[in-house]
Amino acid sequence: MSNEFGRRVLVTGAAGFLGRHVARHFAMRGFDVTGLGHGELSASDAAAWGMRRWQRTDIDRDGLAAHAGQPDIVVHCAGAGAVGSSFQDPFADFQRTVATTAAVLEFIRLRAPAARLVYPSSAAVYGIAERIPIAEGDRLMPVSPYGTHKLVAETLCGSYARHFGVHVAIVRFFSIYGPHLRKQLLWDACNKLGAGQTSFAGSGAEIRDWLHVDDAVRLLQIAAQQASPACPIANGATGTSVAIRDILGALAATLASGISIAFSGTSRSGDPQAYVADMSVAQRWGFEPSIHWRAGVQSYVDWYCSQHPAS
Amino acid sequence: MSNEFGRRVLVTGAAGFLGRHVARHFAMRGFDVTGLGHGELSASDAAAWGMRRWQRTDIDRDGLAAHAGQPDIVVHCAGAGAVGSSFQDPFADFQRTVATTAAVLEFIRLRAPAARLVYPSSAAVYGIAERIPIAEGDRLMPVSPYGTHKLVAETLCGSYARHFGVHVAIVRFFSIYGPHLRKQLLWDACNKLGAGQTSFAGSGAEIRDWLHVDDAVRLLQIAAQQASPACPIANGATGTSVAIRDILGALAATLASGISIAFSGTSRSGDPQAYVADMSVAQRWGFEPSIHWRAGVQSYVDWYCSQHPAS
Repeated sequence: MSNEFGRRVLVTGAAGFLGRHVARHFAMRGFDVTGLGHGELSASDAAAWGMRRWQRTDIDRDGLAAHAGQPDIVVHCAGAGAVGSSFQDPFADFQRTVATTAAVLEFIRLRAPAARLVYPSSAAVYGIAERIPIAEGDRLMPVSPYGTHKLVAETLCGSYARHFGVHVAIVRFFSIYGPHLRKQLLWDACNKLGAGQTSFAGSGAEIRDWLHVDDAVRLLQIAAQQASPACPIANGATGTSVAIRDILGALAATLASGISIAFSGTSRSGDPQAYVADMSVAQRWGFEPSIHWRAGVQSYVDWYCSQHPAS
Repeated sequence: MSNEFGRRVLVTGAAGFLGRHVARHFAMRGFDVTGLGHGELSASDAAAWGMRRWQRTDIDRDGLAAHAGQPDIVVHCAGAGAVGSSFQDPFADFQRTVATTAAVLEFIRLRAPAARLVYPSSAAVYGIAERIPIAEGDRLMPVSPYGTHKLVAETLCGSYARHFGVHVAIVRFFSIYGPHLRKQLLWDACNKLGAGQTSFAGSGAEIRDWLHVDDAVRLLQIAAQQASPACPIANGATGTSVAIRDILGALAATLASGISIAFSGTSRSGDPQAYVADMSVAQRWGFEPSIHWRAGVQSYVDWYCSQHPAS
């Protein structure tokens, strides 16, 4: 299977949740996928996720020079993965998000100048939204080191695009979820409910915009086609408002009938009240989400239960 | 001599033009100055510039942990020093400007949380000015990797100030000059004129705002007093418009009577037409420049001639 942009895909952070799904998505469409990064991933698991090559390495100049090959597409999934830990160890967050991005950009400039870089960023770059839905041109005022570092990584992408002609596209993901995500709200909720705990932080009225990972990786492939020295940016979400009360309610009902959940009313620091994306740009790129959040929650619970057989 | 903010000053990049002058300024006022960095600086030269300790080291976590001590004031002069070379080697520019700033901020967070950080940034963060004079709240659209990386370093400062309470103040310097500056316009002009070359790039009508280094280091000390978790930012300049034709004319007249200079009319990429600072913020801090540019050029030429005795 060929395509107009070349067949070699490099995925950094390939052992992570998004990275694995990106690898499998491209592999299933006939691309030759190399995965680099840290994390627990055996050779056989890497192969099962579609990677022809998997190398545990730092995402720095030496690691990329030794193992990245000559990619046509780079999906730079490596990076810090949590707002909370960025307050505990901001330097590690900087290293994982900013330093790796600088190294990937320099690798492309020097060794793979025709490659198309797709950077999965985060809605955390917006910080407190000035309006809903949030559009890409809205004010960027991140409220965590994590969001700041994602914004800095975007800035570096824009600089290499503008000054060195690197082809880049950025996707600012809102709340991605799906099978194999072993952290964040849905994972924590499954664990809590499984342990008989039914009380959750926050008011339950907080609004999020949930994107299933299968849709997320489709959008990343579309973004690769849009990559250019203009460094276009698109939100990655659905444009649909879902209250946390509703998604956790659906999750609880799927997990076991008759569970009633409650909210403490207290919010976590840095948690915005409402995050919903204006999806006009991604729509212009031809993207439409295909998985409704209720179906997505069902598939997430199915996966979770497959990992935790009732004892 | 004591003062309300403690006596120990750490200067990174202390072998550089600004760093040396910063060290001498604080040393002459009774501070205990430690200098760190790269560059050619002998132990005796470091002592002559006022440093009680001078250590050649990377400005990274290990280097700071080993050699920075427990400063009360940190003036982070380390960083890339030229717009042009940032186009040749953007990764080196990133490492020198961004990675060092991340390390300094983390050092302060973990080991010297009461220290006051002063960051000498650059008017390059503004890029093409949307109006003259340029105020600190104006649009930030750098047009070089150098300017982008200075902006990123500012962003990191703001993040550590906001999220971790680090006391920071930023000064965006326009065109600093003075004795011992062995690069940039005045240095190049002295060398060219000394070699009998009288033609210069550009139209000569380009406007700059020249700040003598003695005034610059005074402003940095004032900034240390202003440092706070609000991370205030001030322009570092005089607010005076001087055409390059005028400053080079004055320089030529000082160097030797009867020299007539000419301009090619072609500009260098990335060179803005007009950079003049709105100095309201620094004025509110109590700063007034004390050295007129004509006197400053005279002192610069005096220094230059002392280094190049007529043969």
